[in-house]
Parts: sequence; C-alpha cells; structure tokens
Amino acid sequence: MDTNRNNENTVKGFKASAIKAGLKKNNALDMALIFSETESVAAGVFTSNKVKAAPVLLSRDHILNGKARAIVANAGNANACTGRAGLKHARMTADLVANELGISLDEVLVASTGVIGQALDMDLISKAVPGLVKGLSAEHIPLAARAIMTTDSFPKITRFEGRAGGRPYRVLGIAKGAGMIMPDMATMLCFIMSDISIDAKELKRAVLESVEATFNRITVDGDTSTNDMVFVLANGMAGNGLLSKEDYSSFQEGLKGVMEELARMIVQDGEGATKVVEIGVRGANSASDALGAARTVADSSLVKTAFYGQDPNWGRIMAALGRSDIVMNEESVDIWINDIQIVAAGLGMGVAQEKKAAEKMTNKEFTLTIDLHQGPYEERVSTCDLTHEYVSINADYRT
Amino acid sequence: MDTNRNNENTVKGFKASAIKAGLKKNNALDMALIFSETESVAAGVFTSNKVKAAPVLLSRDHILNGKARAIVANAGNANACTGRAGLKHARMTADLVANELGISLDEVLVASTGVIGQALDMDLISKAVPGLVKGLSAEHIPLAARAIMTTDSFPKITRFEGRAGGRPYRVLGIAKGAGMIMPDMATMLCFIMSDISIDAKELKRAVLESVEATFNRITVDGDTSTNDMVFVLANGMAGNGLLSKEDYSSFQEGLKGVMEELARMIVQDGEGATKVVEIGVRGANSASDALGAARTVADSSLVKTAFYGQDPNWGRIMAALGRSDIVMNEESVDIWINDIQIVAAGLGMGVAQEKKAAEKMTNKEFTLTIDLHQGPYEERVSTCDLTHEYVSINADYRT
Repeated sequence: MDTNRNNENTVKGFKASAIKAGLKKNNALDMALIFSETESVAAGVFTSNKVKAAPVLLSRDHILNGKARAIVANAGNANACTGRAGLKHARMTADLVANELGISLDEVLVASTGVIGQALDMDLISKAVPGLVKGLSAEHIPLAARAIMTTDSFPKITRFEGRAGGRPYRVLGIAKGAGMIMPDMATMLCFIMSDISIDAKELKRAVLESVEATFNRITVDGDTSTNDMVFVLANGMAGNGLLSKEDYSSFQEGLKGVMEELARMIVQDGEGATKVVEIGVRGANSASDALGAARTVADSSLVKTAFYGQDPNWGRIMAALGRSDIVMNEESVDIWINDIQIVAAGLGMGVAQEKKAAEKMTNKEFTLTIDLHQGPYEERVSTCDLTHEYVSINADYRT
Repeated sequence: MDTNRNNENTVKGFKASAIKAGLKKNNALDMALIFSETESVAAGVFTSNKVKAAPVLLSRDHILNGKARAIVANAGNANACTGRAGLKHARMTADLVANELGISLDEVLVASTGVIGQALDMDLISKAVPGLVKGLSAEHIPLAARAIMTTDSFPKITRFEGRAGGRPYRVLGIAKGAGMIMPDMATMLCFIMSDISIDAKELKRAVLESVEATFNRITVDGDTSTNDMVFVLANGMAGNGLLSKEDYSSFQEGLKGVMEELARMIVQDGEGATKVVEIGVRGANSASDALGAARTVADSSLVKTAFYGQDPNWGRIMAALGRSDIVMNEESVDIWINDIQIVAAGLGMGVAQEKKAAEKMTNKEFTLTIDLHQGPYEERVSTCDLTHEYVSINADYRT
C-alpha cells in the first residue's frame, strides 16, 4: 500500500482542533475535536467488553443511522463505571459540541480515555468546548492525535491516497493506545477521516473487515478496555461517483493498510515493551484454531517473558499450544524464529539452532512461526514482550 | 481439619528415599522414591494440557487398573517434548525400579519435573536407582519432599489423621510447585500416601472431588504444565474394614484438607510472589460463571500488578469481569477488599474507602470479594501478585 507519511495530513472537508481542558494533570492537550464541514457517512466498532464506558453506549446509539459529523474526545478520564451520571455527562459533552457547531446531537460521537470510575469534570469540559470549536482548522489533525495520547510515547497518524472513479481521495487515521494492557489508561481509540464518496453500508462492511484483520490481530493480553472505539467518517468531498467493485476493493485495502499501520504503532508503543513479535500459526485445522493458537501463545506471560529474555524457550510455546483449545498433535509441530527452525516434529533441534534463534531475538522485531500440520488455515497476531518496565508502569500507576 | 504437622511424618507400610543422581546442576537431592510394602490401591489426576510429558503418558497407563506400589520421581529434567525416546526413558526408569524392588512394571508410577525438551540422562538414572531402593526408610518421606523441589523455596508436606471403623489412619501428602507459572520448572507434583483401607473406585472419586476443590482452584495464569500429576496411594494397613458412609465423608474431607494445605503452600511459594489473594465471586448465575469470573480476575496481569502495587484499582477488576464470559450487569456489582467495600452497584465508593482498602493490601494475604447479584452460586480461587521478581525469574532462566 502507498501510505505516504510525508504528505500533508489533511483530508478535504475535515477540520480538527485540540485544547488543554485541564483533565490531564500535566497541563497537556487533553481534548480533541474532529469535524466534517458537510454531511458524512460513518461506521464504528466498539469494545466487546461487557463493561462499556458511557461514551461507548452513547456513540453506539448516535452512529446507528450511519451518519456523523463530529468526534469529540477527551483524555485523562475514561468516564467508565460512572453509571447514569456518566451517561448524562457524555450526552452533555455531545450537546455542547452540537450547539457550538450548529449540528444535531446525534451527529456527534464521543470518546473518552483515562482513569476509570471518576466523574468527568463538566465545568472543565464546558469551558473547553467553545475554544475547541474556534480552533478548528484543516491543519490541526496532528494536534488531535497528540491530545488523545495517555501513556503513549508518540502520536500515531498515517495516511493513504487512492483513486476512485478517476478522482483522488484520501484516508487519514489517528490512533492512541500504548499496548495491550491497561484498560484504565491504554484504551485503543482510532479515528479515520476520508473524503471518499461511499455508501454507509459499504463503509460499514469495509470497516468491519479491516478491524478484524488489524486491530483484532494485536494482543491484548486479554485485558480489553471498557472504552475501545474505532470511528471512520467519509464525507464524499472527493467527488467520485458510485464505487465500482474495483474501487471498493482498493479503498478497503487502503483502509486496512491505514489500520494495520496504526495497529503496528500501538504494539510498538506497548507499555514497557522492548520487542514486537509477529506470531504466525499455519497448518491449522480451522481459521479459529489458527487464531486461537496464535492468541494463546501471544498472551502467555511465560512466552512474553522469554521474548524479553531473548530466550528461544520452545517448551513454553509447546505448553501454551497444548493448553489452547485446538486440534493438535505434539509430534507434528514445527517452530521457527524468523527463518531459524528450533522445533521439528515436536522435538527440539538442539543448542546450535537455539543459539542462532537467540541471536535473531536480539532484534527489536522478529517473527515466531508455528506449523501445526493439521490443515490449511493460518493466522497472524502481533504481540510484545513482558518486561520489568511493564510491571513498574502497572504497579505504580495511581499510587 | 486436624492436620498436625508436629506428628511424625510416617504412614504405616510406606517407605521413601531420596538421592543426588546428578540431574540438578547444584548437586542437590533430585530423585525420590515412595514405596508401599504391600499392595496398594491408587488413583491419579493428570495435566489437561494436550502436550503431555512422557511420564504422564506412562503413569496414566500404569494406574488404569487402580493399583500401584511405587512412585519414582526426578527433578531437573521434565522428560517432556522428548518423543518416543522420552517414552522409552520413562519406561526404562519404571523398569529399573520394578526390578530392584521385585514388583511388576505396572505397579510403578513415574513423575518428572524440570527443563522441557532435553533427553533424560539414563546413565545417571540407572546408577541412582539401586541406591534409591537401598535408602528406603519409613522416616525419609520429608527427604522425598525435598528431592522433588525445583524453584520451590521450601519443601511442602502435610498430614491428616482420621479414624475409620474405630481404627486410626493417616493421610500424608508431599508436593512441589512454586507458583502458577512456569511450565518448564514449576510443574505441580503431589504424592499422597494413606494406610486407610478403601476401595479403588471410592478412592478415585475422593481424589477427583478433592483435586477439583483444591488444586483446580489455584491459579495458574493459564500456563498449565505438561507434567502436572497428583497420585494417591492407599495400602489398607490401618486395618479398618469396609468404609461406612460417614467414614468415607470424613476421609474425603481429610484428603481435601491435605490438598488444600499443599495448594496454599504452592500459591504462597509463587515465583516472585509477595501477596496471596483469595478471590471469591458470589451471586453468580451458575457455578461455571462464578469460577470463570474468579479465574479471569485471578489471571489478569493488570489485576495482579495492582495487587503488587497495593492499589485497590477496581476499574481493572470491572474490566476483567466485563471480558469474562459470564452473565453480569455492571450496575449490580459490589466489590470488597477484606471487609472494606470499594464498589457498590458498579460505582466506586470514593477515596476514603480506597485508602482503607489499600491499607489491607499491605498485608501478605487478603481477600477480594465480588458479588455479581445475579444468582446463588459462588466460587473461590487463590492467586498471587505479578512482580518484578516474576519477570526476572522467567526472563533470566535458561540464559
């Protein structure tokens, strides 16, 4: 895909702004607004966690009709586990933004990330909204990417340009999320703007497929957030006509590429992470076996500490496979680190191979490939290592 | 239960011994033998991991007929992921012991714990077996408890005395396992000897019920071992007659008590652990919901790091509940640390309560209680915290 991060980070008809509302303790940008000057179709994906933050409940309602024009997001407070007051606060936030922008309430989507269980300071929000709207500019999308950061160490933004019906269009995405792993601070938020003209149903399909192939393939040590959201808005300003089949495919690939890049950045920015590891499982008996095996290995604390220790400890990988809910036969498992095979037919290949594999593991990124030899299915999941720094971040936060 | 650790650690008709075979690098005791002078009924429970070590496969076969007279165990090498050679080595070990003791091959059970994927050194085993048999003594059961240790920081042994048909009998258990968490070194092994007279089927039932209520209620961050085993041998030397219903119940409770105590010791000895936390979930819609919720919370890296940080971070607990596969309603969840309530009806009870809870969390042991208010079911699971030391142990091992 031809993501080009050197292009200017703008999309026809979209403006953004960011402001210091005072919700973060460190006086940083902590509120962001994204606005489409014209009507826009919209699709969203929300956390599967049964405990859903107030903004999730509200935005899920607002996006039901396949339309939205604004996204208002705050960092510093997740507005989760806040009950009815929380829902009221999310609605008030949307209302303030709708009034200030002169659009209807249900055209506003709300997203929050930060501490769970504390009331949102509506005084600060009320005071911030007018300035947020005044600050709207086509050039300010990178500022919005910065404002939604929490434990992130860098803002995440990427862009794709395609052509449909002979007209150029843009897909620009921003995201936040610093690893797998901290539901009260490391919610995954992703906002994508496009000026392509696309039907709401087609957009929804493209979004679901892309999320499944990207954000649902990074781990996630199981600890899903109460606030995760992906929003995609498309305002049609590129002026392409009806999408041909080829144009749709190309858009879908582009959208997936943008999400893939943002997902990669999130794993890379994993809390305390020193390694990014792509785990591929092939030869599985079903697609769900392939994914289940990859996820079990990717989420194993033992495997993740071995990555940290740069130790090709394949016994832990075998043990993780063995407890995953898949069809497998120990005696037909092959395992590689990059191109170095360390297990053949369930047996270790010896110290020399392990030494070569350990050498590969000194890199910041490497792959772990498992062939189950049970069938034709394969899947890939990205993960990071489990480090002292991860324990420090998560044990010391809030105290 | 009246476990009495001051009593001498003997059981009528049982002998044990331990020896330095050279399998551990540090010249410590690393082989153990337990022997019943007479015929003995036996029951066993084995790892549910699909990757099963050679001694698991062999012993599962040998115990099928409900009889066994000897258990030979080694530490330092798990004989797991070792293929056909591994099976041959496990059988050879049993054979050597059977010959030396003059009993039949299938009366010998084999257990191993240690590194995965390396061939067992049969020279060392062969040389050790005669000495092992020579060393058999009724007084040496504590030595056997020491010989099966790997990352354990203390040997685990406990004892119960009961009466059946007017005759006293004894149940003596030894175990190894240093936490949840390290399949290549922290296999859970438990060997229990009793002189009660009991039918093989009754023994099996008592063992299954006791294991389910004890060892299956400690976590286990999911990383089950390839080598876990529980063996119970009962040789009838107490001379009680047929067990009455009451006698069976009392034996079953006693057996469960022995396993409970050994399980508690294992959690307490968790790798790098500084806290032991009993997580109770009540008000669940089903027993499996109660257990599922307790396990999800107990296995969450985020919850476990919060325990380490002594932080009553209930947002993480809510998020873990939310991703567990249970019937729940955020708005009806109550949460306590010991007797301090921190969440009522899904909402936090404020900083003052959290401070009191944090104070309780400075203790080495505390309870976390969750009431889902969905039904009458409850379950309990014990876990430990996730610490810097855990990462050190597991990242540095083997390297």
